[in-house]
Amino acid sequence: MTLLNRQIVLKSRPIGVPEPHHFELVSRDVPALAAGEFLVENLFLSIDPAQRGYVNDENNYVAPVAIGAVMRALAVGRVISSECSQVKTGEHLYGWFGWQDYCVGRPDAILRRVDPQQASLAAAAGTLGINGLTAFIALQDIGKPRAGETVLVTAGAGAVGSIVGQLAKRCGCRTVAVVGSDAKGAQCLTEFGYDAFVNHHHALSDALPAACPGGIDVFFDNVAGEVADVIMGRMNPFGRVIQCGTVSIASWVPPPQGPRIQREILTRRLRMEGFVIFDHVARFDAVAAELAALLKAGALLTREDIETQLERAPAALLDVYNGRNVGKKLVRLRD
Amino acid sequence: MTLLNRQIVLKSRPIGVPEPHHFELVSRDVPALAAGEFLVENLFLSIDPAQRGYVNDENNYVAPVAIGAVMRALAVGRVISSECSQVKTGEHLYGWFGWQDYCVGRPDAILRRVDPQQASLAAAAGTLGINGLTAFIALQDIGKPRAGETVLVTAGAGAVGSIVGQLAKRCGCRTVAVVGSDAKGAQCLTEFGYDAFVNHHHALSDALPAACPGGIDVFFDNVAGEVADVIMGRMNPFGRVIQCGTVSIASWVPPPQGPRIQREILTRRLRMEGFVIFDHVARFDAVAAELAALLKAGALLTREDIETQLERAPAALLDVYNGRNVGKKLVRLRD
Repeated sequence: MTLLNRQIVLKSRPIGVPEPHHFELVSRDVPALAAGEFLVENLFLSIDPAQRGYVNDENNYVAPVAIGAVMRALAVGRVISSECSQVKTGEHLYGWFGWQDYCVGRPDAILRRVDPQQASLAAAAGTLGINGLTAFIALQDIGKPRAGETVLVTAGAGAVGSIVGQLAKRCGCRTVAVVGSDAKGAQCLTEFGYDAFVNHHHALSDALPAACPGGIDVFFDNVAGEVADVIMGRMNPFGRVIQCGTVSIASWVPPPQGPRIQREILTRRLRMEGFVIFDHVARFDAVAAELAALLKAGALLTREDIETQLERAPAALLDVYNGRNVGKKLVRLRD
Repeated sequence: MTLLNRQIVLKSRPIGVPEPHHFELVSRDVPALAAGEFLVENLFLSIDPAQRGYVNDENNYVAPVAIGAVMRALAVGRVISSECSQVKTGEHLYGWFGWQDYCVGRPDAILRRVDPQQASLAAAAGTLGINGLTAFIALQDIGKPRAGETVLVTAGAGAVGSIVGQLAKRCGCRTVAVVGSDAKGAQCLTEFGYDAFVNHHHALSDALPAACPGGIDVFFDNVAGEVADVIMGRMNPFGRVIQCGTVSIASWVPPPQGPRIQREILTRRLRMEGFVIFDHVARFDAVAAELAALLKAGALLTREDIETQLERAPAALLDVYNGRNVGKKLVRLRD
C-alpha cells in the first residue's frame, strides 16, 4: 500500500519573514524505507519563530532550507514502520520531521523520545520541547535569577516567555512581561503569574520604571530591536541579558542600525549571551522530566494555540510573527 | 611652613573628549590636616582613557568631576605627613590623589599600598596599577583563554592592550593586535610578542581574515565603534567579548548608531560582558604580586611614556585619545 504524503515545501526564498506565498503544498508518495530508516506519522507540527532563520539566506547556526525541500520543522509523531534497530514501531518521537504528514527519518533526526504518560503530546511539542527547554536552560544558565531580583521577559506571553515568567516567579523574582496587547498582558497576570506587564505599543520608556521600580536584573529577550533598546537603559549593574530571539527584526540583511550598546554593557557591567537550544540536547530528558513534574503538580501552566490543517502551517507561522498566537502554536494532524 | 599646591582643575564641562582648554592650572595652599587625614606628595600621575568618563555628564559608574574641582586621577605618591592611624609617613600609596602636587587624603582614597621593592614606582602606576590589573583580571575572568585560541586586542599597543597580548600569549593563544599605525604594529610584534597586527586605518575587513585565519575566540575590546563592528563579524561560536573600553566613541550623548549586534550574539552564542576594574579591588594585591613576579622574571615587558610637567597632563590625555602615546602615559612630578 502506498501512502500519500502531503508536504509543505519552500517555493521561493523570502527576505525577512516568510509568508504563505513562499510555500506550496505538494503530494508525493512515501518511498519504501531503506535500511536504517523509520517512518514517522506526524501528530503535532511545531510552529516556531526560529523558522524564519531556517529559510532566509543569512548568517545562522544552520544552513537554509533548499528551494523545493520540505519546510524544516520540529514535530511530535508516532513510528508506524521501522527498518532501524534503534527505533521501534509504536514509539513516539520529537524531532526534525518537517511540515508534512509523514517523515522518512534516521536517528539523527530525533531530538527526544516521547513518553505519552509523561505529558500530553501537545506538551511534548512545546513545554517539554524546545520552548520549555529553552525557557528553563537559558534562564538557569545565563539568567541565574536570585530571589528578589526583577526578571523582564519580552514576548512574555509567548511559548517560551510564558514559561520563563512562571519559572522566574518560582525563583522568588518579580516578573514583568513585555507584550503587544493589553489582552495578552491581562493573560500574563492571570495565567502566567507575572507581577506586571507593559504593552510595548504604548510609551514603553514611561511604563518601564513603574513596572520595574527596582530596575531589571535579568532581561530575557526574545525580540531585540527598539523594544530591547529601551529596556537596556533600565538594566541594573551586573544584570544578565539572554539573547534568545530577535523576532522584532524582520531581516538582518542589510544589518539594521540601532543605538550602540557597548557603553551600557561596560558601565553597568552587563553580561549578554546568545542562546541556542540545540547546544543542550544532552540535558533535554532531565530538564523535560523536571518540567513534566511541574505540569503534573499544576505548578506550571501551558497554553497551546492549535490549528488542525496542514496547509495552515505557513499562515500560522506568520501569525506568530505578528503576535496573533496565544501560547505555543501547533498544527494537529491527527489524534 | 605652607606648601603651595599646583592643581589642574576642570574649568568647563566637555562634551566628548576633554581638551586642554577645559582645564586650568591653579595654585592653592595645602590646608592643615584634620584628624584622619594624611598628606601625599604625588610622584607619578596616571593618564587614563577612563578620565573622559569622569568629566562628561553622561551615564557612567561614577558621578562626574565638578566644575572647579581637581581633576580626578590615579597617582602614585609618598605620604609626607599623617594624622591618620592607618597611614604612616614615608609610605608609598596608589590612589585617587588627582592631578596635583599634593593631595590631602583619607583611607578611602587608597587603591593599593605600594612596595617600592616590588617594582618601579612607574610600574606601580601602570602595570601593577589599573592597567595591568585590568588586563589580567578581565582576560582571566571573562576571556577565559585556552591554548590554541585566537585572542584579538583593540588598542593592542596601549597600556592595557600591550599587557593583554603578553598574558594571552603565555596562555598559548594566537594573539592579534588592532592598532592605529604600522609603527605601533611593529612594536606589537617585536616588543609585546603578538603573532600579527592589523592597522585599522587600512581595510580592516580584508586584513582580519589573514590575521585571524581561525576566527576570533576572545575579543578584548578597548575601542568599540566601527572597528569593533567589523571584528564582531569574525567571532567564532562561543566566543567571549570583553567590553573594557569604548575609546573610539567620542560621545554617547546622543547615543551613536551602529549595526545591531544581537543576531551575531545569538547565532554565534557569544558572551559579551562589561568590565570595570574597581569592582575587583579585593584582588589587587594578589594579582599585582603575580604581575610583579612576571616583570622581575623578564616575562612581561612594560612600556611607559613619561611626561615631566604637571601642566602637560591635559594634553597628555588628549594624546592618549589620539593614539599618540606608546604604552602607559604618566606624568612624573619628582624623583
